[in-house]
Amino acid sequence: MRKICVVITARASFGRVKTVLLAIKNRQDCDLQLIICGSALFDKFGSPVNWIEDDGFEITAKVNTLLEPGQVTAAAKTTGLGIIELSTIFENLRPDIVVTIADRYETMATAIAASYMNIPLAHIQGGEVTGNIDEKVRHAVTKLADLHFVATTAARQRVLKLGESPDKIHLTGCPSIDIAMGISKRNSLTFEPYKLYGGVGEEPDLAQRYLVVLQHPVTTELGNAQSDITCTLEAIKTVNLPTLWFWPNADPGTCGISKGIRTFREANDGLPIHFFRSMRTEHFLELIKNSACLIGNSSTGIREAAYLGVPVVNIGNRQNGRERGQNVVDVTPNTDLIEQAIRHQLNHGPYPPDFLYGKGDAGRQIAQILAEATLTFDKQITF
Amino acid sequence: MRKICVVITARASFGRVKTVLLAIKNRQDCDLQLIICGSALFDKFGSPVNWIEDDGFEITAKVNTLLEPGQVTAAAKTTGLGIIELSTIFENLRPDIVVTIADRYETMATAIAASYMNIPLAHIQGGEVTGNIDEKVRHAVTKLADLHFVATTAARQRVLKLGESPDKIHLTGCPSIDIAMGISKRNSLTFEPYKLYGGVGEEPDLAQRYLVVLQHPVTTELGNAQSDITCTLEAIKTVNLPTLWFWPNADPGTCGISKGIRTFREANDGLPIHFFRSMRTEHFLELIKNSACLIGNSSTGIREAAYLGVPVVNIGNRQNGRERGQNVVDVTPNTDLIEQAIRHQLNHGPYPPDFLYGKGDAGRQIAQILAEATLTFDKQITF
Amino acid sequence: MRKICVVITARASFGRVKTVLLAIKNRQDCDLQLIICGSALFDKFGSPVNWIEDDGFEITAKVNTLLEPGQVTAAAKTTGLGIIELSTIFENLRPDIVVTIADRYETMATAIAASYMNIPLAHIQGGEVTGNIDEKVRHAVTKLADLHFVATTAARQRVLKLGESPDKIHLTGCPSIDIAMGISKRNSLTFEPYKLYGGVGEEPDLAQRYLVVLQHPVTTELGNAQSDITCTLEAIKTVNLPTLWFWPNADPGTCGISKGIRTFREANDGLPIHFFRSMRTEHFLELIKNSACLIGNSSTGIREAAYLGVPVVNIGNRQNGRERGQNVVDVTPNTDLIEQAIRHQLNHGPYPPDFLYGKGDAGRQIAQILAEATLTFDKQITF
Amino acid sequence: MRKICVVITARASFGRVKTVLLAIKNRQDCDLQLIICGSALFDKFGSPVNWIEDDGFEITAKVNTLLEPGQVTAAAKTTGLGIIELSTIFENLRPDIVVTIADRYETMATAIAASYMNIPLAHIQGGEVTGNIDEKVRHAVTKLADLHFVATTAARQRVLKLGESPDKIHLTGCPSIDIAMGISKRNSLTFEPYKLYGGVGEEPDLAQRYLVVLQHPVTTELGNAQSDITCTLEAIKTVNLPTLWFWPNADPGTCGISKGIRTFREANDGLPIHFFRSMRTEHFLELIKNSACLIGNSSTGIREAAYLGVPVVNIGNRQNGRERGQNVVDVTPNTDLIEQAIRHQLNHGPYPPDFLYGKGDAGRQIAQILAEATLTFDKQITF
Repeated sequence: MRKICVVITARASFGRVKTVLLAIKNRQDCDLQLIICGSALFDKFGSPVNWIEDDGFEITAKVNTLLEPGQVTAAAKTTGLGIIELSTIFENLRPDIVVTIADRYETMATAIAASYMNIPLAHIQGGEVTGNIDEKVRHAVTKLADLHFVATTAARQRVLKLGESPDKIHLTGCPSIDIAMGISKRNSLTFEPYKLYGGVGEEPDLAQRYLVVLQHPVTTELGNAQSDITCTLEAIKTVNLPTLWFWPNADPGTCGISKGIRTFREANDGLPIHFFRSMRTEHFLELIKNSACLIGNSSTGIREAAYLGVPVVNIGNRQNGRERGQNVVDVTPNTDLIEQAIRHQLNHGPYPPDFLYGKGDAGRQIAQILAEATLTFDKQITF
Repeated sequence: MRKICVVITARASFGRVKTVLLAIKNRQDCDLQLIICGSALFDKFGSPVNWIEDDGFEITAKVNTLLEPGQVTAAAKTTGLGIIELSTIFENLRPDIVVTIADRYETMATAIAASYMNIPLAHIQGGEVTGNIDEKVRHAVTKLADLHFVATTAARQRVLKLGESPDKIHLTGCPSIDIAMGISKRNSLTFEPYKLYGGVGEEPDLAQRYLVVLQHPVTTELGNAQSDITCTLEAIKTVNLPTLWFWPNADPGTCGISKGIRTFREANDGLPIHFFRSMRTEHFLELIKNSACLIGNSSTGIREAAYLGVPVVNIGNRQNGRERGQNVVDVTPNTDLIEQAIRHQLNHGPYPPDFLYGKGDAGRQIAQILAEATLTFDKQITF
Repeated sequence: MRKICVVITARASFGRVKTVLLAIKNRQDCDLQLIICGSALFDKFGSPVNWIEDDGFEITAKVNTLLEPGQVTAAAKTTGLGIIELSTIFENLRPDIVVTIADRYETMATAIAASYMNIPLAHIQGGEVTGNIDEKVRHAVTKLADLHFVATTAARQRVLKLGESPDKIHLTGCPSIDIAMGISKRNSLTFEPYKLYGGVGEEPDLAQRYLVVLQHPVTTELGNAQSDITCTLEAIKTVNLPTLWFWPNADPGTCGISKGIRTFREANDGLPIHFFRSMRTEHFLELIKNSACLIGNSSTGIREAAYLGVPVVNIGNRQNGRERGQNVVDVTPNTDLIEQAIRHQLNHGPYPPDFLYGKGDAGRQIAQILAEATLTFDKQITF
Repeated sequence: MRKICVVITARASFGRVKTVLLAIKNRQDCDLQLIICGSALFDKFGSPVNWIEDDGFEITAKVNTLLEPGQVTAAAKTTGLGIIELSTIFENLRPDIVVTIADRYETMATAIAASYMNIPLAHIQGGEVTGNIDEKVRHAVTKLADLHFVATTAARQRVLKLGESPDKIHLTGCPSIDIAMGISKRNSLTFEPYKLYGGVGEEPDLAQRYLVVLQHPVTTELGNAQSDITCTLEAIKTVNLPTLWFWPNADPGTCGISKGIRTFREANDGLPIHFFRSMRTEHFLELIKNSACLIGNSSTGIREAAYLGVPVVNIGNRQNGRERGQNVVDVTPNTDLIEQAIRHQLNHGPYPPDFLYGKGDAGRQIAQILAEATLTFDKQITF
């Protein structure tokens, strides 16, 4: 019975690997160990804990590691705490393999704790390119990981070039696309957002064309967080369509983003904007699928939105360099440019689906390899 | 005035960068911040603190991060603590650039704390290949670092292949060679080892041919630590020459090594072996320079010993894959094979000098680049 | 030159010991080491960092230890981090004595780090009685401390009864009263609160009778945080006077308080309430001195407000058992009772000054004893 | 089903509460959660982990928190780590009550984690008086604990005087006496120490009169560790009887003790001394029961040795002030005085049993109260 330990550190990660978790859970030869830590535990950052339990998963352990954002040391210390505590968790659970997801700064905690304890480490979503601290973290995690699940051909190529053995790299597509596939036929909302998810602000009519905004801080440009978000807020104000706005994740700079939103709200009453903390992945994807445009800098705009054909305005450097489809218009954080890009996308309307990040079968594939692959923890660069 | 913060986490690291530190200290345009942490603070692991101060350096801060070795979580937790505490140090010192050395597991703490705080990170000795957890750590640190000082042409090539910008990679040679050059003419000992460094065991006559042993644990083969060291001890017993033996570093597995040595000592009285905790780098290099053979798995056998032409018996996987000169005979940890290899080297005698790891000018070069290079903390993979 | 290290972990603590810090700074025989950590570093919790620097103090080190509040483990982990990091600070600064203030949960971090390192520990404000985790913490810190500065005769008696030596207990009064004395003649505001401190909400006319609210969570009654604050909000709504409201500290439960305030604000536009993050102690005391009533559960209502004769409505168990003057009306967290108590205090008007917590000379006395007392770190219970 | 979580942080603690654990385990209404952390995990410090498992207990979680001793910050940091990690353990196990034992420095970690999480805390062995950091820690833990199990009438009186409610203080005797009672009739050894426990040094004949030595560092007198132990070693050398010597615990100063022993051993071959790491409590008590004298500063000399009537030479300040029976001769750490005291005890021979620390029923009593008492976590000083 192979013990597979998956560590989830942020709200987005659960949605991203849910189909992997389901596939592991449904296998007879695997025991799923599910660890939730970091910002994924906090309601204010959109904790998926309730949804995880609703979906029938048992959480093996919760580990609170999140320092209050807003100090320059917060990300490092959250990572340090994560290493310390995850090593205890791993010591007690004795997993056969540990799985870490994508490139958030805390994923490094999982990678280091596993590597330094001689536990094989699998990494999902390596080999991509972006801006942000994520860029450094992603490739460093690749160099610690023993098994790689990549989403695109280019990502596979990049992991290879980084000196990983070809037999350890699996091109499975991104499991986030699995869920996007599941909801891709829903041409109207199957749930009532305001009723189900609360939030604050006006409740504009979603039968109209509406926008969705999800913009996170850029950790390498901390000083710009508040001014950047203000550009987006001003652009949205000018466009003046119904807008569903999601609070940012807990990355460094989140306080600047939140302060920008709060300051804007104090000064602007009655705009047709509603603010949500978070939403189940399926609902969030439904929401953008039926929206006129997704605005911000989330990787969802690059991945799932490509598959769903949603017009996207991608702002700033956070996704800089990540492969993207036709559905994305890139702009710098400038009110006028954002406004123009939104209007462009409104005129354009939906795009054809793009299968760049997968075809919807990643979860099952990844689970099978995790269950059956020969596991190793010692490797050497190939060149 | 550029503030350059160098973090030293192990006894060997000080010797390795001493000429860099001297060169920084002697520049008018730099302020050296010297942080000592981890095992480098502990007498029992050969702390260089006194030598650092004797050499006229001021230690800016000491940071105790070392968990008692002997638990499978110790390396991870030491690293986690290191990240937490170094981030506080960096917050208070506000260095312009942080320097991390080589590939010990704790170097990751320095790399992560600096990276996550948007402080430019320089890495010395990247691009080499070995076994041990060091192999993963070294390349992961390369992916976090913004500036690279490499020791060999092959290492330069490897860092390039890892997707780093050519203008950020500097082939300076290894600063450890600078010190080796300084003592390369000393054809007899200029100090009295027993008197100066104490230690335990017999005090065999060093006017005779003598051996030096330095063997660390292999972190990826923890279960073998005690049996591996016992092979070496038995081989040395058979060869029966005067031997100077150094206790191991604090890596995971150190308890197995120490237990092996202690058990052997209880059972073997009167052998001509003396045990030292540690020694100033200059003295240690003198010692091996004048020895008949260096035995174990330290990188000194590969680097400085090549320059000095010392015959080396390298045991096991720790240095697996690292470029080496003619002076090294590789063996697996087996009593007979080790004995044969030692006898081979005794027959062979000294080797001609090999400049593979540098020509003795690395310290000055590195200091100059640290002082003058344009510093950045945001990068992207080149492919 | 005696090195005195004072650790400040929360916004309120700076004001509370400012006159001590000034007196130390002005002595020739002392070197002041000032450490700021925990919530005292965060703007959102009213960081006093800028004021500290404005007042001419040099901050020796900042130490970020604050976990995001909102998880049941946050207070414990913040304390654990504090111990780890403060021990490093103490190791590097080598103070002759460490000073910890009052009874917040993180004060335990200072107390433990100093005690376990054999550094003499002084404690200000021991021997008082309250509710909250503060009650346990305060007396436990007394049992770790070597030198006690108490504010009242009853507090002195209690520290004695706890088995401390009489010669180690000094009845100096509370240094917070020193500042209250300094502003006690200001019968109108000498600053413009909205202009100087920003904040959100309406800006009611402060020439009218106005109220001040400062209500923190009760850590031992976490589940009630949101409902408790809502009672106060509703009572203030009914009274409908100009109100200056301060956001809570970072104690466990702070998220419930903030959520209660935010929810109330979304539902109640245009009430004459202004919300501040924080204020310099002198300004805050001026504000309450000139207010019609102070409402909430801050110890300021018990200490400084007694000296200043300000009518106070003290809500719930947080100050339960603390000695108080005539100016305090105690109520449970119930909308009607709070409203009635406010109306009672509005009818009553100012009270005569009460010198229960000191006469305004505590700072100088404490500094002198810190500078001159024989310092010890080893003690034994007296019974 | 009441969940009772017992945290064991040192080798001695398991023996001390074993009968409590057995009694909890045998109750139908309780679920025992057993956490092992700190030095109790390390073979070199005499880990009881194997014995715990041999005795049929299941270890719920292991938590590695021990920093390498030998730095002045080690005790504080081990405690800080303990708080951080135990809070995660408590969050996941959700115990109804947490039990902490005696007065070692790390017991504070258990006490703080539980207190700050509003979990009722029980304390075994409060109210006693000693030297060492233990003295501060013990009384501070009393001020954090909600339920007290004391060993002597004087201890009960002291906890009362510290302001604890009489109904929360239970005079049960010390559970360590329960085990002493169990072996009190064994007038010869039932096991072969050298065979069962290995160790190093000579193997003198235990059919002869023999001595047992167990001497720990005194944390408040760190600088004396090596010279103190050397006095004892020299005295034992002079007396020249078969001696069984136990390595010290992991308290600060342990390196000095170990160094003293190692240095002495290098210089003194062939003395009739055998060195053990540790031993099961039952065996250790058998060993002292049948010895001619117990020498050192362990509380076993004060507690169990009184019950067993073993002559004891108690050295230095560690047990200073602890109630003791007639069997103890106190001396300062001086070779001549220690020798004289040993000779005095050899002449005197066994003492009559003394029931000062209990009559052998503590485990059952404590378990019953833990299972049935009304649990609270909020308290106030009684005066």
